[in-house]
Amino acid sequence: MDGRDWNLFLLPYEQAVEELKVKFRTLRSELKTRQSYAPIEFVTGRVKRISSILEKAKRLNVPMDRLEEGIEDIAGIRIMCQFVEDIRIVADSIRERKDLTLVYEKDYITNHKESGYRSYHMIVEYPVQTALGLKKVLAEVQIRTLAMNFWATIEHSLNYKYKQQLPAHVKERLRKAAEAAFRLDEEMSSIRKEILEAQRTFEDSSNL
Amino acid sequence: MDGRDWNLFLLPYEQAVEELKVKFRTLRSELKTRQSYAPIEFVTGRVKRISSILEKAKRLNVPMDRLEEGIEDIAGIRIMCQFVEDIRIVADSIRERKDLTLVYEKDYITNHKESGYRSYHMIVEYPVQTALGLKKVLAEVQIRTLAMNFWATIEHSLNYKYKQQLPAHVKERLRKAAEAAFRLDEEMSSIRKEILEAQRTFEDSSNL
Amino acid sequence: MDGRDWNLFLLPYEQAVEELKVKFRTLRSELKTRQSYAPIEFVTGRVKRISSILEKAKRLNVPMDRLEEGIEDIAGIRIMCQFVEDIRIVADSIRERKDLTLVYEKDYITNHKESGYRSYHMIVEYPVQTALGLKKVLAEVQIRTLAMNFWATIEHSLNYKYKQQLPAHVKERLRKAAEAAFRLDEEMSSIRKEILEAQRTFEDSSNL
Amino acid sequence: MDGRDWNLFLLPYEQAVEELKVKFRTLRSELKTRQSYAPIEFVTGRVKRISSILEKAKRLNVPMDRLEEGIEDIAGIRIMCQFVEDIRIVADSIRERKDLTLVYEKDYITNHKESGYRSYHMIVEYPVQTALGLKKVLAEVQIRTLAMNFWATIEHSLNYKYKQQLPAHVKERLRKAAEAAFRLDEEMSSIRKEILEAQRTFEDSSNL
Repeated sequence: MDGRDWNLFLLPYEQAVEELKVKFRTLRSELKTRQSYAPIEFVTGRVKRISSILEKAKRLNVPMDRLEEGIEDIAGIRIMCQFVEDIRIVADSIRERKDLTLVYEKDYITNHKESGYRSYHMIVEYPVQTALGLKKVLAEVQIRTLAMNFWATIEHSLNYKYKQQLPAHVKERLRKAAEAAFRLDEEMSSIRKEILEAQRTFEDSSNL
Repeated sequence: MDGRDWNLFLLPYEQAVEELKVKFRTLRSELKTRQSYAPIEFVTGRVKRISSILEKAKRLNVPMDRLEEGIEDIAGIRIMCQFVEDIRIVADSIRERKDLTLVYEKDYITNHKESGYRSYHMIVEYPVQTALGLKKVLAEVQIRTLAMNFWATIEHSLNYKYKQQLPAHVKERLRKAAEAAFRLDEEMSSIRKEILEAQRTFEDSSNL
Repeated sequence: MDGRDWNLFLLPYEQAVEELKVKFRTLRSELKTRQSYAPIEFVTGRVKRISSILEKAKRLNVPMDRLEEGIEDIAGIRIMCQFVEDIRIVADSIRERKDLTLVYEKDYITNHKESGYRSYHMIVEYPVQTALGLKKVLAEVQIRTLAMNFWATIEHSLNYKYKQQLPAHVKERLRKAAEAAFRLDEEMSSIRKEILEAQRTFEDSSNL
Repeated sequence: MDGRDWNLFLLPYEQAVEELKVKFRTLRSELKTRQSYAPIEFVTGRVKRISSILEKAKRLNVPMDRLEEGIEDIAGIRIMCQFVEDIRIVADSIRERKDLTLVYEKDYITNHKESGYRSYHMIVEYPVQTALGLKKVLAEVQIRTLAMNFWATIEHSLNYKYKQQLPAHVKERLRKAAEAAFRLDEEMSSIRKEILEAQRTFEDSSNL
């Protein structure tokens, strides 16, 4: 580690994570109250561990005095959805928020990673009020279904265990599990469509 | 509703849920500390809503003065596991606890319901210390994987929407989703086996 | 109650309370990290109950379509301090925040109410991001010592019990308790001064 | 530190603190529901830090293999009351519980410490279900008014700052503050008596 006071360095990121968690959780309750359905199932957040920040800086060749711009996921928010279709709805609503600024987006759902990883990422800039004044920090918002999250959690712990060197047969197994997760999401989407159509038919007939 | 004070009636169940949630969550941390892996992913709990208690009492022909014995899931605890294999481990550990008494078990994993529902249920008796003395209440502990839980959550909201009268094509879709969830669990189990074997091979060779 | 949907009306206030609680609590941790002492002991928050909003509207002659401007404490935040001197420090820091706008202040510490009530109130305007866009709401921030809070809590429950009609001898007792709370704060302030002087003397001698 | 795994050593104490916090907090809600008034204002808990355990073991000459019996407050619960009279009520209810065993009591209210410290302590034995079986641990329950707690908190941080060597004038100030806290409690008790008498008079006259 370099000589910096990491506690002080991480403070505004911890604050951003706490505030964004509250904001997306209240958005969920608000939507449940307004329209009975919320495209958000639950929200988690975390600040990247120091060791992971240092590793990533090394891997991406980010100089130590440029961590704030170079590592975009020191503050991380994860939004879990019930259906794949909800992901786009959540992303749209984030684009319209006035309390943060969208920097860019990465769509790993249309183009999933070779490993099988699927998720929608939005890098945002968020202003936190610190004791020393206003400070803007980057945060990564990951939006995914429960099945995508389930798979990603397991991939993450495997990578952690094997230190990013997954044996070929484990990789193959993971790819099959990713397919099973994908099929589960597809089945769920088709159920969603049935329900929407059923409602539309019902509303049509009641409008006669 | 009958004339009873439902707040007072539900008090010991709320207490049981709070205490059991704490107990299974600390079990999770304890196992993470002791052996680095915990078969418990997360724990939730709820007290059944009054309207659902009344509905179930009617459906099961439980007289109103026998709710405490007749409705076994007024206090409900749900334990989520990463792998199907973890469910048996958790069930074993519950059987050995001295702070509750096992009443009986329902294995909907070996024999899943026709709807596709899979889960392991244990009915337990748990003593709560109330202001009026010790009182034993029944509680249902449901143990399931994340994929089982994901599917069950959606089935539950569909049944709620369609008032237990699912149209045939929705039922058919749900059954397919249950299969997809089942395949996901199977893929995950095979990954688990690979890992355990890999570890065993490694330990064998290091024992030479 | 009028015909409005009170759940929808209260949503942005609930959101403001949740966000402001998080903000002042992280300010506390930030100051503990930066300078080892935080002038904030703990933070609570609440949304005013509908019945209390209606009562206050009646008492202050606020028309029902002007509640948002006329009732300033629908969202309420309370910041508890260890020493009277901390109150001014907290108020200063709130005046400098960029994520809210100060509307006006009421100093019931320099000029306590006849009842004995002491507290520092700041009315602020806070922007919340709702599903329908940005919305500014009023919130009242009360800053007080633990002794002031202790007394105020008891006065509040007495007023509630006696429906604002405190008998003369209870009023008299409350006034004496307010004096005792005031003396406790004064004793604490004098301890605080001793400590600061002791530190200064120590630092002086170590600078020789 | 000795060679023991402190994380494992502290596990059952953490569990005891979590469970006892839940139990006394639900007791509070239960009493609020049953009789509208609860003698418990709020409940906190903590596990003693390792450094403090070692210090206390040294001060009390407790050998390192006898910490579990020799240090009685590794698990600590604090129950805050509004009125001095509530303390006795809470202590009575603890004596009657079947989910813990009272070991002994220390009454620092009738006989306050020379420093001015007032509080009621109960040492209890509490059984926790661990992954290795049932284990009984000691816990200290401290019962006190808000004013007693306020004073004790400040004394604790002063002792911490001055390393148990309080200068005479600070000690003198603390004693005066303890008197002010004591007077505040007395004023509050007299308010409580007024209220109870007022209620009795009212009930008498309504029985005519």
